[in-house]
Amino acid sequence: MTEAGTDWEPAVVAVLGAGSWGTTFAKVLADAATAAGKERSIRIWGRRPEVVEQINTLHLNEQYLKDTPLPAAISSSTDVAEVLDGAELVILAVPAQSLRPQLKEWKELVAPGAVVVSLMKGLELGTDSRMSQVIAEELEIPEGRVAVVSGPNLAMEIARQEPTASVVACSDEDTAAAIAHCCTAPYFRPYTSTDVVGVEIGGIVKNVIALAVGICEGKQMGDNTKASVITRGLAETSRLALALGGDVHTMAGLAGLGDLVATCSSPLSRNHTAGRLLGEGLTLDEVTAKMTQTAEGIKSGYAVNELAVSLGVEMPITAAVVAVLEGKLSVDELGPRLLARSLKSEGDY
Amino acid sequence: MTEAGTDWEPAVVAVLGAGSWGTTFAKVLADAATAAGKERSIRIWGRRPEVVEQINTLHLNEQYLKDTPLPAAISSSTDVAEVLDGAELVILAVPAQSLRPQLKEWKELVAPGAVVVSLMKGLELGTDSRMSQVIAEELEIPEGRVAVVSGPNLAMEIARQEPTASVVACSDEDTAAAIAHCCTAPYFRPYTSTDVVGVEIGGIVKNVIALAVGICEGKQMGDNTKASVITRGLAETSRLALALGGDVHTMAGLAGLGDLVATCSSPLSRNHTAGRLLGEGLTLDEVTAKMTQTAEGIKSGYAVNELAVSLGVEMPITAAVVAVLEGKLSVDELGPRLLARSLKSEGDY
Repeated sequence: MTEAGTDWEPAVVAVLGAGSWGTTFAKVLADAATAAGKERSIRIWGRRPEVVEQINTLHLNEQYLKDTPLPAAISSSTDVAEVLDGAELVILAVPAQSLRPQLKEWKELVAPGAVVVSLMKGLELGTDSRMSQVIAEELEIPEGRVAVVSGPNLAMEIARQEPTASVVACSDEDTAAAIAHCCTAPYFRPYTSTDVVGVEIGGIVKNVIALAVGICEGKQMGDNTKASVITRGLAETSRLALALGGDVHTMAGLAGLGDLVATCSSPLSRNHTAGRLLGEGLTLDEVTAKMTQTAEGIKSGYAVNELAVSLGVEMPITAAVVAVLEGKLSVDELGPRLLARSLKSEGDY
Repeated sequence: MTEAGTDWEPAVVAVLGAGSWGTTFAKVLADAATAAGKERSIRIWGRRPEVVEQINTLHLNEQYLKDTPLPAAISSSTDVAEVLDGAELVILAVPAQSLRPQLKEWKELVAPGAVVVSLMKGLELGTDSRMSQVIAEELEIPEGRVAVVSGPNLAMEIARQEPTASVVACSDEDTAAAIAHCCTAPYFRPYTSTDVVGVEIGGIVKNVIALAVGICEGKQMGDNTKASVITRGLAETSRLALALGGDVHTMAGLAGLGDLVATCSSPLSRNHTAGRLLGEGLTLDEVTAKMTQTAEGIKSGYAVNELAVSLGVEMPITAAVVAVLEGKLSVDELGPRLLARSLKSEGDY
């Protein structure tokens, strides 16, 4: 793309979705502009009036980010037309399964030539489409204007301004570089990549693997077992990414390994927590009832498994997690099954 | 090799070194024989009479393995000639820096044709040699009879019989397979590899990266930062392994990623703990005084850095850790330095 060179500066950014990651990324964009000495206004669209009002009046989003102060450059509205008006950069952070119907409503409101960034980590049930594919299809824009941001990015830690690295991926490397410049804050360091498939698959499957690691933890298994599940989990993620045209190097990087390790280590991860509760013996319904936010890995697990089967990719950990979610395998059987492979060479992907 | 086909069964195994990993591996070998319905006697050589006596009389090694009961097939002696007599399989588990002088003493006692396995994870200071190289040189045996075992293998967890996977590497794949068969216990699952360099480098450098992760933890940094250090740490480990002729796939496996993640997650890791104490502000002398066992990463760190410099391999995390150990960089400067790279593509090895 030409417009989005490294000097590109979107004066208005729209962030659609007022959850933890959407709000945190809005803060990153505001702090990045301040650090670069640029004027930038960031508008968050939220569904719930009380959240929007709290952002506008108290500069807080307490439900998701507790007492994190939000920069003055951030405003919020329930009116999506107002938020999108004139925004050259549009950030999407809505639940994965509701993206397509929402884009159908929003399509005519997106400014011509806008660059669209997905913060979402999920695979659409039914179509097995990645979020960037849904965006390009529904908004009918070229893939060089659709990017994804992913990495070891626990939102709460970024909100606390702890040093974090991330990856901005777009098939057009100038677009990726331009977005990376827009979101480089003192505590947030983005790298660039052109491997959109690899970056998205890394972000999707890690939630499923985090469920498996959480289950092992709930079953009181040790760090040897958990490290093996993470290792074999990244191997099956890499096989899927390769089958879809992704690059194996991406899997060894921040959006693959980095994100997987952060998610599987952190008590802040919803998927990790959901797995732990399953491992402790709760049913899926009890786990769902206990969690305030969705554990995306539960929904994506089915889609990932479906995709793997249709492509003939071996994903034993994902298959085992789905069997647990469907009630076909008990959590007691999961651990032994993950280790029960015949003696052989560790092998390739 | 011919002798070490999959039917190979060493009736006598010598384990030289009565520390936590040596003793635990002796237990694995004993339990593996029992599971396979084979007779096998495992003899541990230990330097200290009180440890040897405790193994022989109480079937315990309390200093390292607390109340773990050791199988009856394990005996112990301070007489290395007695231990090595007729042993077709010799396991080495002594401190890395004392291996060469000890092998000079032991050379004439090793049975002709014996297969030698290294459990050690270190690089020899001065020569920058890997342990398998020191073994082949000092015992003057072909590399097809020297193997290494490495993986996400926290000894205490294996002693507790928690499910664990590992890698047996030897340039001769029949030897690797034969050893793997010898040590397959219900809770210990070895894979095989012919990439001795990669497996050893993974085991060596992970201790240095664990120091860096520990320092970040001591400085109260979050899981995003730690996951980034693990990811970039594995990337620099891979660069070193590649420069030495290793295989990048090994780094993505159990002996690379798996071992690194287990070490960096576990409170049982000495290197991780040493790093945390440094991060909390203790000096290197204070940390050394506080630890009962050596943190191998401290010694190997210097050797790894030296090797990287001599080969022209970029290892910024290792260099930063060594600078901290040498008192040339404060722990406060470490975190920002690890993240302070110019914006660029994540790139290859």
